[in-house]
Amino acid sequence: MSGVARYHGGFRWEGVHPEPYGPELDRPGFQGIVRQRLFGRELGLAAELRYFELDPNGYTRLERHPHAHAVMVMRGRGRVLIGDRIHEIEPFDLVSIGPDVWHQFQADPSTPLGFLCLVDADRDRPRPPSERELEALRRHPELSRFIRS
Amino acid sequence: MSGVARYHGGFRWEGVHPEPYGPELDRPGFQGIVRQRLFGRELGLAAELRYFELDPNGYTRLERHPHAHAVMVMRGRGRVLIGDRIHEIEPFDLVSIGPDVWHQFQADPSTPLGFLCLVDADRDRPRPPSERELEALRRHPELSRFIRS
Repeated sequence: MSGVARYHGGFRWEGVHPEPYGPELDRPGFQGIVRQRLFGRELGLAAELRYFELDPNGYTRLERHPHAHAVMVMRGRGRVLIGDRIHEIEPFDLVSIGPDVWHQFQADPSTPLGFLCLVDADRDRPRPPSERELEALRRHPELSRFIRS
Repeated sequence: MSGVARYHGGFRWEGVHPEPYGPELDRPGFQGIVRQRLFGRELGLAAELRYFELDPNGYTRLERHPHAHAVMVMRGRGRVLIGDRIHEIEPFDLVSIGPDVWHQFQADPSTPLGFLCLVDADRDRPRPPSERELEALRRHPELSRFIRS
C-alpha cells in the first residue's frame, strides 16, 4: 500500500486507470470527462483525491450537493460557475465549492481542462437542478449564456 | 467560502500564507520547510490539503504515525524513505505512506522539493523514532546513509 506510483507524463500515472466518468454517462449533461482515482480509502484516508480531465469544450453536469469540493487546476484553461458567479480558471488556481452551491466546470474550446478534486470519502450524491431551479438560474442573463445542460 | 483563489506563480496563492513548518522548528530534524494550507476544515472537508516546500538539501523529520499521507510531488527533485525503502521522486509522482510507516523526505542539493500532502483533518501527532528504533533502522546500511536527524 505504501510506495511511489510514477508519473508517466500526459497526466497518466503508474497503476492508475482512467475511467470515463459518471454513472449517467449516456444522459445529457455529461460530455467528455475522464476520472483517475489517485488516492482514497485504500490508504485509510477520510478523503479521496481524483484527477478529472474534460475534453476541449467538455463540461461537467450542473449540480449541487451537501459535500464540498476542493479543486486545483492542473492543465489547460476553462471557466467554472460557482453559485451565481463565473470565474476564468487556469493552472494552479484553487477552487472552493462549499456545501449546496451550484457549480459547473467548462473547458475552453481549444484546450482540455484538467484538475485535481478533493472530496470526503463519505459523501452524498450530487443533484442536478429541477426544471424550476434551472429556470431560476437562467433568469441571470450571464448564467443563461453559460449553463450547458 | 466558495470561490477561486488565483495562483500567483512561484507556488504562491492568493490569500494563502506561507508559514515556517513545525511546532519543533528549533529542534534538530526540521530544516528549511515552509507549509501553505490550501484547503481544510473551513470548507467542511474531513481532510486537509497542504503544499510543503523544502529548501535545497532540506528534509522533513523522520517520523511515523497512525494517520496516512497522500503526496503528489509538484516541484524539484528529491528522495523519500518509506519503511525500509528509498525512492527517487520528481513531479508529479504519487507517494503513499500508510499508517505507522517510517518516512522522511529529502530535497536534492540543487533544487527545492515541493509537494502536496493530503491528510485527514482529525489525526494523531507524528512521532519521531526512539533511540532504539533509530538504531534498528540504521542497521540497514542504505538507510543509515540516508537518514538525517
